[in-house]
Amino acid sequence: MSTQHGIYLHNFPSKPIVPRQTKTSTTVFRFTIRGSLCLTETNNSSKTMTSSNTLRKVQVVSPVPADIDIANSVQPIHISDIAKDLNLTPNHYDLYGKYKAKVLLSVLDELQESKDGYYIVVGGITPTPLGEGKSTTTVGLCQALGAYLDKKVVTCVRQPSQGPTFGIKGGAAGGGYSQVIPMDEFNLHLTGDIHAITAANNLLAAAIDARIFHESTQSDKALFNRLCPPNKEGKRRFSDVMFSRLKKLGISKTNPDDLTPEEVNKFVRLDIDQNSITWRRVMDINDRFLRKITVGQGPDEKGMVRETAFDISVASEIMAVLALTTSLADMRERLGKMVIGNSKSGDPVTADDLGVGGALTVLMKDAINPTLMQTLEGTPVLVHAGPFANIAHGNSSIVADRIALKLVGPGGYVVTEAGFGADIGTEKFMNIKCRYSGLTPQCAIIVATIRALKMHGGGPAVAAGKPLDHAYLTENVALVEAGCVNLARHISNTKAYGVNVIVAINKFSTDTEAELNAVRNASLAAGAYDAVISDHHGHGGRGAVDLGIAVQKACENVAQPLKFLYPLDVGIKEKIEAIAKSYGASGVEYSEQAEKQIEMYTKQGFSGLPICMAKTQYSFSDNAAAKGAPSGFILPIRDVRASIGAGFIYPLVGTMSTMPGLPTRPCFYDIDLDTTTGEVIGLS
Amino acid sequence: MSTQHGIYLHNFPSKPIVPRQTKTSTTVFRFTIRGSLCLTETNNSSKTMTSSNTLRKVQVVSPVPADIDIANSVQPIHISDIAKDLNLTPNHYDLYGKYKAKVLLSVLDELQESKDGYYIVVGGITPTPLGEGKSTTTVGLCQALGAYLDKKVVTCVRQPSQGPTFGIKGGAAGGGYSQVIPMDEFNLHLTGDIHAITAANNLLAAAIDARIFHESTQSDKALFNRLCPPNKEGKRRFSDVMFSRLKKLGISKTNPDDLTPEEVNKFVRLDIDQNSITWRRVMDINDRFLRKITVGQGPDEKGMVRETAFDISVASEIMAVLALTTSLADMRERLGKMVIGNSKSGDPVTADDLGVGGALTVLMKDAINPTLMQTLEGTPVLVHAGPFANIAHGNSSIVADRIALKLVGPGGYVVTEAGFGADIGTEKFMNIKCRYSGLTPQCAIIVATIRALKMHGGGPAVAAGKPLDHAYLTENVALVEAGCVNLARHISNTKAYGVNVIVAINKFSTDTEAELNAVRNASLAAGAYDAVISDHHGHGGRGAVDLGIAVQKACENVAQPLKFLYPLDVGIKEKIEAIAKSYGASGVEYSEQAEKQIEMYTKQGFSGLPICMAKTQYSFSDNAAAKGAPSGFILPIRDVRASIGAGFIYPLVGTMSTMPGLPTRPCFYDIDLDTTTGEVIGLS
Repeated sequence: MSTQHGIYLHNFPSKPIVPRQTKTSTTVFRFTIRGSLCLTETNNSSKTMTSSNTLRKVQVVSPVPADIDIANSVQPIHISDIAKDLNLTPNHYDLYGKYKAKVLLSVLDELQESKDGYYIVVGGITPTPLGEGKSTTTVGLCQALGAYLDKKVVTCVRQPSQGPTFGIKGGAAGGGYSQVIPMDEFNLHLTGDIHAITAANNLLAAAIDARIFHESTQSDKALFNRLCPPNKEGKRRFSDVMFSRLKKLGISKTNPDDLTPEEVNKFVRLDIDQNSITWRRVMDINDRFLRKITVGQGPDEKGMVRETAFDISVASEIMAVLALTTSLADMRERLGKMVIGNSKSGDPVTADDLGVGGALTVLMKDAINPTLMQTLEGTPVLVHAGPFANIAHGNSSIVADRIALKLVGPGGYVVTEAGFGADIGTEKFMNIKCRYSGLTPQCAIIVATIRALKMHGGGPAVAAGKPLDHAYLTENVALVEAGCVNLARHISNTKAYGVNVIVAINKFSTDTEAELNAVRNASLAAGAYDAVISDHHGHGGRGAVDLGIAVQKACENVAQPLKFLYPLDVGIKEKIEAIAKSYGASGVEYSEQAEKQIEMYTKQGFSGLPICMAKTQYSFSDNAAAKGAPSGFILPIRDVRASIGAGFIYPLVGTMSTMPGLPTRPCFYDIDLDTTTGEVIGLS
Repeated sequence: MSTQHGIYLHNFPSKPIVPRQTKTSTTVFRFTIRGSLCLTETNNSSKTMTSSNTLRKVQVVSPVPADIDIANSVQPIHISDIAKDLNLTPNHYDLYGKYKAKVLLSVLDELQESKDGYYIVVGGITPTPLGEGKSTTTVGLCQALGAYLDKKVVTCVRQPSQGPTFGIKGGAAGGGYSQVIPMDEFNLHLTGDIHAITAANNLLAAAIDARIFHESTQSDKALFNRLCPPNKEGKRRFSDVMFSRLKKLGISKTNPDDLTPEEVNKFVRLDIDQNSITWRRVMDINDRFLRKITVGQGPDEKGMVRETAFDISVASEIMAVLALTTSLADMRERLGKMVIGNSKSGDPVTADDLGVGGALTVLMKDAINPTLMQTLEGTPVLVHAGPFANIAHGNSSIVADRIALKLVGPGGYVVTEAGFGADIGTEKFMNIKCRYSGLTPQCAIIVATIRALKMHGGGPAVAAGKPLDHAYLTENVALVEAGCVNLARHISNTKAYGVNVIVAINKFSTDTEAELNAVRNASLAAGAYDAVISDHHGHGGRGAVDLGIAVQKACENVAQPLKFLYPLDVGIKEKIEAIAKSYGASGVEYSEQAEKQIEMYTKQGFSGLPICMAKTQYSFSDNAAAKGAPSGFILPIRDVRASIGAGFIYPLVGTMSTMPGLPTRPCFYDIDLDTTTGEVIGLS
């Protein structure tokens, strides 16, 4: 076993770094060291003592080993030690094993009076299908801030969907020397939040079909008798959830026996229009055969068949509710008012109309608590809510960000990730999430890679599972420069919110100095506060120290207040058009269906909500093949839906699949358990 | 706050009790006391000191309050204290919050040399739809053994399905003063085992349809290229899981490039016969509209539609694997060899053929660890595997029972529950579970109620949600005596396994002395070792002290070895017929489909497996209306399926639904969260 102290780095250029001082005596033997990888603490004598005894610096090797090998090479610190570093006591969290803990919402009440730290959102340029390392950059930056720059820091990331983990993409814990660990626990089940969402979503779905069925086979009297059965003394009572429906119907009676036959009719019959149902079942699996299905074909369902579909669980409105809620009471209200479709007379039908809002809240009561984990270098991570900013909201949760901001306090840093390119992830972060949270970011990061910029400059198509074209492996400054139009638009769009924009160039081993300089110059020309080359993949936090310093400066020097892209009190179309303009579109075209839905939602009083566009992540436009910074196109809106509980209107731009499929050789072929050690193998 | 010591009981008859002595100093203030309920420890000076400081005795009130009110009135003990009482250290378990912990399988390795305690299985008479209190009796007996009779005891129960919790039946934590707590955590999510089963089951389902699709659209060469893609150096390799398929095909080559075109064809084409697929998707929700569905109707699936269905998750073969497995390696093997259907040439196709056995194991790696909880009186409970002995195996797990038997050690007691009546639950316990575990029970309990016996004696129908007929509320000894034919057959069937049978009469407030005596006499006449009236519902462990003493005697006085109902090495039909005979049938009738399947499974080499009958729980026969002890009927076998991974053949007797539905007014109407306290309300 190696007991080397200090940091051993290979091929790392420039700049002095500021090593964080830690007490080594208690921590240096925490780590088991396997193979060629090991971790050590610095053993500088305690010049600047800190309260932390969890931070550590990874010793790296080159070339960078497989993600799971790096993750498995590190013995994680007990999560109660990570929590202690955040001044959390065992009363503030529930352990889930040794390396995960759910931080209880009550922490927010306790810290109500505390001041927030700096708030940084990480977006990206328009990505290739391989991803440009946004999670990795988020994690690496935090490792730099925490383990090298002596800052209080919390990383806020989203729980990955198990669909891609077993499908094409693999896990989402970051990569190289910038990862959330234990990587297998992060990618599998975590603390069950997505399972809770699946359960709640599908309970509501079952309630819808069962209700339509029972209404179709029973008289008003029979329905009433069952919904409000007489007790032993012959007395009927409304359950609490029924009062929300009664209120909506304008009935203020509290005794069921006082209802007139007309009121009974209105009360018992939701009269759901089957064609209007937008609520689908979900599953956290890539199951393409559930994209369009017919249900109700059993003989007992008496011919009440209907076409419907499954979405992947992370696309559920309940995931968006979890991401945007601010308290238990708020979550209860949002879940109850989720609209599943309309009655035949055009009124929205809610979860509370179906009597199930309370049960959904009960299923989600633990999911509202974010999960505490750690990075490879021992900095704290809060994992909450879900991915897929293309078909969903795709930001981590307000609750997690708020808790994190209080925990780091003034001078501390919270780095939160927004999905995919800044056109969708950061846009939704600003206009939806910050609106509901009231929080203001000081700095927005845009992650760029030479690879993606070359693609935007006109390089050949990049596809998962296929070897990269030669153009991506050799120097081509002109291609990079041409591609910077994509980056420039993301910079100016993001800058318009009033934040300082920093471009983080996620360095690959094939990048050349000239290419990297070209991006730096283009970034500054486009108005970026700074542009920094970052090698956190190969070097962990040490590789992102420059980025950390730039972020610190950007946060300390904000000149403007937060400005939204659109006001809420204009029409749905005006809001859609403001976003379309930011994409570069010269206009918007609405399908007949979209027109109809916009009219209906406006009539139903929902036009004051923000907009959550469902759009391809591969282009500013609806056409995934249109790289760079397309302009002058007409953005087609195929349909418009509403997530009333989550609190947004949801236009579908072109054709977006909400259920991925499995390829011929899914990731699962490589995944297995070493039944001797209990270790997961083959997870990527 | 009341600081009364000792036990205050109302209306409790006869017999002296043996109070357990405990150290009170450290424990008496553990409990918060709300409303009229409170808990106290006895404060006898320490005559017989024990190591336990978690046991306590509930103070009861009459009439018995609602289950959730009793459960909420008790502050549970931190689960690490319960674990400590079992000599478990923090290395032996993972905490899931403060009141649940997963006990790690490695405990079994550590305790390999330890001797087992006594092993008691709890079955019942043929129940009414209201249930006869089998879980309640299981819990109450353990509270008596642990908190009153000074025995080491562990209760082994099954995790409830969330379907019934939100549907008709409500939770399954026991009832009255005999419950597992926290009751809401027990009934909701628990530690995610059922969610893991759902995820694994549905990943396999998605893999089946995706594979059929990809095979139908690609050449052998294209499939091979994708399944074994060349790496950067142009070399191909098999993933580990592929070797199980190669072995099955008789191909011993290890280099993909060495395969002949014929071998490539055999390797890449599973050639699944769509009509033979028995693997269904699952969901832990009562969703009747998924009983029969058509999938694959999306345009991208190119017309490859097929009819299929969802089962409730607890009916998944993966649940049966979990219940019957004995180690990680054994679980990996079982999951890999699960058969999902046949190839067009009639060969069974397995999960490992699809490349997914390893991924399923990874999804189930934490589920294999049973969950430690506690009873109202502080005795330990292991919760594992699932319910539904009618459509599934319905016993708690071998792993949990084994760990429990080692933890209590010689002289200690493990009480494990088998689902529904002894005809299905206990029968499967003996012939399937004990066969795979090699464990031998000393005592079998049969839970009976006056209510159910009256029904078997000819009383009017009993239905959930409807008031009980007068016959059940007033004395009618003749009706009870007539119903004892049902009890008598369960006694003689159970006794035939070589165990001592004890009848536990679960006392209701409407039962009369004469009725109770009639059951006691009939039990002894039918060969029961003892028959005991038990009032654990109204009095907790104290109400089951007599039962505990009887169980102790029965365990200490076993005369015979375990005898199975049928040997394994006879034909499938002979085994089915042996079980049918135990039901009282005079013969068995097989459908054409059943004949075909039996022939096929026999040909495939699966005839040596035990039998897991899917039969109504409401009668010995296939006809739920045939109460008492029907005989002379012909048992119809509609279909036969095989759970090769779990290890049994699975005949369907008559029509059994594997997906429950929601009623007009499901339980969820009453369920909500008190968003101020975070407490669940309305759960029953």
